[in-house]
Amino acid sequence: MNREELFERISIKNQKKMIMIILDGLGGLPINGKTELETAKTPNLDNLAFDSELGLTHPISIGVTPGSGPAHLSLFGYDPLKYTIGRGILEALGIGAEVGAKDLAIRGNFATQKNGIITDRRAGRIPSEKNREIISYLKKRIKKIDDVKISLFSGEEHRFVLRLSGEDLSENVTDADPEEIGKPILYSKAKSKKAEKTAKILNKFIDKLTEELKDSYPVNTCLLRGIAKYPKIPPMSKLFKLKPAAIAVYPMYKGLAQLVGMDILNTNRSIRDEIETLKKNYNNYNFFFIHIKKTDSYGEDGNFEKKVKVIEEFDSLLPRILKLNPDTLVITGDHSTPSIIKSHSWHPNPFLIKAKYQRKNPETATKFSETSCAKGVLGIFNSIDILPLMMANSIKFKKYGA
Amino acid sequence: MNREELFERISIKNQKKMIMIILDGLGGLPINGKTELETAKTPNLDNLAFDSELGLTHPISIGVTPGSGPAHLSLFGYDPLKYTIGRGILEALGIGAEVGAKDLAIRGNFATQKNGIITDRRAGRIPSEKNREIISYLKKRIKKIDDVKISLFSGEEHRFVLRLSGEDLSENVTDADPEEIGKPILYSKAKSKKAEKTAKILNKFIDKLTEELKDSYPVNTCLLRGIAKYPKIPPMSKLFKLKPAAIAVYPMYKGLAQLVGMDILNTNRSIRDEIETLKKNYNNYNFFFIHIKKTDSYGEDGNFEKKVKVIEEFDSLLPRILKLNPDTLVITGDHSTPSIIKSHSWHPNPFLIKAKYQRKNPETATKFSETSCAKGVLGIFNSIDILPLMMANSIKFKKYGA
Repeated sequence: MNREELFERISIKNQKKMIMIILDGLGGLPINGKTELETAKTPNLDNLAFDSELGLTHPISIGVTPGSGPAHLSLFGYDPLKYTIGRGILEALGIGAEVGAKDLAIRGNFATQKNGIITDRRAGRIPSEKNREIISYLKKRIKKIDDVKISLFSGEEHRFVLRLSGEDLSENVTDADPEEIGKPILYSKAKSKKAEKTAKILNKFIDKLTEELKDSYPVNTCLLRGIAKYPKIPPMSKLFKLKPAAIAVYPMYKGLAQLVGMDILNTNRSIRDEIETLKKNYNNYNFFFIHIKKTDSYGEDGNFEKKVKVIEEFDSLLPRILKLNPDTLVITGDHSTPSIIKSHSWHPNPFLIKAKYQRKNPETATKFSETSCAKGVLGIFNSIDILPLMMANSIKFKKYGA
Repeated sequence: MNREELFERISIKNQKKMIMIILDGLGGLPINGKTELETAKTPNLDNLAFDSELGLTHPISIGVTPGSGPAHLSLFGYDPLKYTIGRGILEALGIGAEVGAKDLAIRGNFATQKNGIITDRRAGRIPSEKNREIISYLKKRIKKIDDVKISLFSGEEHRFVLRLSGEDLSENVTDADPEEIGKPILYSKAKSKKAEKTAKILNKFIDKLTEELKDSYPVNTCLLRGIAKYPKIPPMSKLFKLKPAAIAVYPMYKGLAQLVGMDILNTNRSIRDEIETLKKNYNNYNFFFIHIKKTDSYGEDGNFEKKVKVIEEFDSLLPRILKLNPDTLVITGDHSTPSIIKSHSWHPNPFLIKAKYQRKNPETATKFSETSCAKGVLGIFNSIDILPLMMANSIKFKKYGA
């Protein structure tokens, strides 16, 4: 029996409510001896920590720095090495483009060519506004190729998403990207007989786009990469018998939540707004994923102080969540984003779970901080075990075996 | 190489003695700030803990509450998701019925029917005494069906075990249980050609029993479920090159020990008796599994005080075990049974190992308690790794690779 078969077998439905709050990139590294979380004044989190079980979690496994995709799959209880999300799909999720089960999503770059030779793989990193103009123009010109519907979505700068909708599409084709300048436009090749149709459509698209843009140097061709279908992931309703909802502001996280079958709740953008959305929908679901983005954004910017401020803002709003009195509450990150590294890192996430049947932390673990969580009663484990732990604490797992 | 191949390859025979003491359901949850183990006065355990390596163990994995079957397979070093023990086999083990390699064990319910319709799936939960009378009567009447030997064993109330012994029996048949009242007696169906004989025998048994009991309303038919063969598990003598023995009072645990090839030692019922049995047989084996049941029983009853008393009783007898001076001694639980939950739980087990070559615990981990063990030098790991750790400490594993 594998892990998923086990969970499907032992999970049961009940009315108990679970809330998982993800402060993106929460974990940090010390500057002057204290991390962002340790620097922030967080009386509410610290009070809660005193009454919770604490620990640290590795997003994937020790030493592995994850992107948002695998990090969130782990948080939702799925093996991020089993389910890989194609780059095209992630890109589509990131800009909010819906992708159906039969569709293909492709990550596109606008590029520059001269006499069929690629001279810039990013077309001079054109402004996003220019991108939107071009996409708007192309949308009118390229609606269909053979029997396949073509949809185009602007990304930032030179990036866009191409979606193919039709019958018998396959991801079993090569990227159409020479990967360096000075080489000719590269066409996609089918890796199997069945994929020939897809390669043909992609190549016709490249030619058609290059023709349409022949007078708009430097944006006069494209590269197509990460050609992918929507991954087949059993929904949380099947694996964990939950009725789950997501509250997130950025399309990527809504997309990731949708991938595992969560309903996406409409929300305004501030942390306060997200909590309002939680309150409004509290009766309709038994699992809530709440995603708070700015901790990560400021970490990526290397802005220690502003990351501290976001944590303090969340702390000040925490009592509104506690008032709902959920049966099981988790507060953690998807991965660490230390300001001094300015990027995601491999350091484990501070983790807190509050429920009814819990043990006490050692008396040296009293705050919600990286150092305190390292001494917590839960020890150090992998994020993939968070959801099972929440299920157990909500009495949503029955005994395995007699 | 898988885990079992690794162990078979690196394990070696030597004379060193290992004792694994399982206080069933030992781990608990705090009431007034202290768990059962933390409330109990355990000077001997605490002395021992000071000199031992401490940790916590998850029976299966984080969040998963195990039954006794999978929990003990883990303790014996076997993957409880790889080896699943059919319900019929567990029931047979639980009442002490031996099951051979070719036999089938089936969990039976006495039930009530009227004109072929099931009206009570438990025949009014008859007293166990009545059950024994009926089984005794049936044993004389149904000894064989075709070429298959029939054996019957009383369980509690309406439960019994049916054992089929003969050639070409298969577990690939459906349960003969309509699962709700108001439906007709359901017969077993073969799921493959090879299983047709078994389905026929089971169905003839149902008819014969129903005929024999036609005048003994409300006990006038039966349901048959969990039809299972003995699982094929490599014995501990093969995997770990051990000569293992079990000292247990309850049939279930003797059965589980037998499943992995332990000799079952005759013993009287008190903890003191079990330790006497250990002493008497100490020269004849190099691995002893000692099972103490009452910690779990009182946990299941929600009787905090009596669970405390059993722990104290064990503590007072511990010096008798220590006098044997085993090379490696483990004291832990199979799973937690907190009195406030009144059932098995997912919380990890306090764990102690005493051997020759060990590191010191942090100075804050000095007692044998859930909180202290959470700070132990061994950290938190899965029960399946206990036996390998004992093997290592007894120098029964050679180096893997050069």
